[in-house]
Amino acid sequence: MAAPTKVPIPALLDLTIDNITPNTVKINSQSGDRRMTYLMERLVTHIHDFARETRISTEEWMAALNFLVQCGQISSDVRHEFILLSDVLGLSLLVDSINHPKPPNTTEGSVLGPFHTHDAPTLEHGADMSSDPQGEPLLCICTVKDANGKPVEGAKIDIWETDSSGHYDVQHSDRNEPTERCIMTSDANGDFWFKCILPVSYPIPHDGPVGKLLEKLNRHPWRPAHLHFMFEKKGWDHLITALYMRGDPYETSDAVFGVKKSLIVEPQKIDGATAKEYGVPEGSWVLKHDFVLTTEKETADLRDRLAHEALEKQGLDLKLVDHLPVPDLD
Amino acid sequence: MAAPTKVPIPALLDLTIDNITPNTVKINSQSGDRRMTYLMERLVTHIHDFARETRISTEEWMAALNFLVQCGQISSDVRHEFILLSDVLGLSLLVDSINHPKPPNTTEGSVLGPFHTHDAPTLEHGADMSSDPQGEPLLCICTVKDANGKPVEGAKIDIWETDSSGHYDVQHSDRNEPTERCIMTSDANGDFWFKCILPVSYPIPHDGPVGKLLEKLNRHPWRPAHLHFMFEKKGWDHLITALYMRGDPYETSDAVFGVKKSLIVEPQKIDGATAKEYGVPEGSWVLKHDFVLTTEKETADLRDRLAHEALEKQGLDLKLVDHLPVPDLD
Repeated sequence: MAAPTKVPIPALLDLTIDNITPNTVKINSQSGDRRMTYLMERLVTHIHDFARETRISTEEWMAALNFLVQCGQISSDVRHEFILLSDVLGLSLLVDSINHPKPPNTTEGSVLGPFHTHDAPTLEHGADMSSDPQGEPLLCICTVKDANGKPVEGAKIDIWETDSSGHYDVQHSDRNEPTERCIMTSDANGDFWFKCILPVSYPIPHDGPVGKLLEKLNRHPWRPAHLHFMFEKKGWDHLITALYMRGDPYETSDAVFGVKKSLIVEPQKIDGATAKEYGVPEGSWVLKHDFVLTTEKETADLRDRLAHEALEKQGLDLKLVDHLPVPDLD
Repeated sequence: MAAPTKVPIPALLDLTIDNITPNTVKINSQSGDRRMTYLMERLVTHIHDFARETRISTEEWMAALNFLVQCGQISSDVRHEFILLSDVLGLSLLVDSINHPKPPNTTEGSVLGPFHTHDAPTLEHGADMSSDPQGEPLLCICTVKDANGKPVEGAKIDIWETDSSGHYDVQHSDRNEPTERCIMTSDANGDFWFKCILPVSYPIPHDGPVGKLLEKLNRHPWRPAHLHFMFEKKGWDHLITALYMRGDPYETSDAVFGVKKSLIVEPQKIDGATAKEYGVPEGSWVLKHDFVLTTEKETADLRDRLAHEALEKQGLDLKLVDHLPVPDLD
């Protein structure tokens, strides 16, 4: 954090459509935290420009503020309506793309969504993370490697999906323990494997304000069938991603913009030998997938390089401090 | 509302920093409601540009979403944290300025704030709307006229202020009836008069997320002493305003940007004749003020004219439908 700078604060009197923005920016620039100052400057400028370009009516403004209250009030320990809002506005995809750029031939990221929890049980390889007898059994055989094909041992892998009705455990009001989710650790070969159920397409929660917004926009709330994965290991870039099932009716119209071609997979009917090796019934579905991680350093370097390029292209005179842009005042 | 337009929806696959915005805009453009389409186009563009210009980090994004949840969760029937947020960001002032432009020599508007209620008692002229014995008694003698000096009879006037501790009634958890607020009606001469207490400066509620934000920004939460007024009469532009007491220490640094020079007033010690006429003790404070309303039509015409001028200046090719800008596609 830079030393506090003296900001000449204007006399805040007779503010108008034309002078409110620079005055608000100035009064917000007294913290001495250059990043905070820059974020607020951009935020206020965009919000005010939005109001000026749309000549927003008092009724629209009030409706928007009430919408935001509703989003907060429907949120809970197990529901985050603002993540959902960020998802359907394409912001979550954008934030992930900015923060976790991927070098070629490494696994791309996808949206986190609002349903990751911190209470998933740690399971052994081969365990079944689903407790839903209605689902179609799926065996996943996966590896975690680096870009050179070297196994990544000891990566913590969070995996979660819905039950066969298209609901995450937290969406059931009578949930008393986590289901359809687990944590695994990759072994010395970078391998991990687990049983689950074939994912199904499902609507994002649309009984709240975000659902009403989608309805107004004539947008459907569906996500194509997918399995969520999150990879964590010290020194490696945190990877939040998902695998999408080929042929899903919502493959090209995901309500939250998460699908990438490289993340579309196609489960197969298992062959006899594999079924025997993994102790699953013949006729089960099997999915084999290799995840490729990048190091934290590679990602940070790539992110910085892309930030410099993007800011230059936008004509912004900024420098990176702690990898984040601030105005270059020095 | 225009007839639904066919919007060619793109295949939403492989979305990136560069293509997420046009794709989100397209998927949001299917409602056939041109105003909604325009609002969403501007909203998404600004939110995405904000993310791109700041290269917002995942941690900052999550902190912002959690801040919004907190704003929603502290809100209640008697507290609207998002209005407060809009106020401290200068948006409320801007929205009022856009929607209620004032011709010269008419009463300017000011911010509504989050403390207007709908349960104020209707009082007769001369009544005391305060029940706070600690406050310094103030007699207000006011008129409501049009720009030509003609009285406006039968205007409904909402008036509200804090008690002498700087709190509105709704900020007291044991509130069981409205105090320091009332509704009056102007008489045939456009007059109304009432007793209240000399307003005091007070901090906006700063025990919630908006207060924490102000603290981070090294901003104080104070508002200069003022009395709120709201005027309503069919055919007349809805006037939300306030009168600010001259010499207040926060006169030029109002946390919500509401002060205008034309709204600064100076209560006087009452003279003997007036004290006698209105039945108040000698030595009381008195404030005389003439409010000047504009007609709904004058305001609508002025708003449309200013909207056209502003949009042209911004280089936006828009037309007004129901007084609100939409893209000119015809």
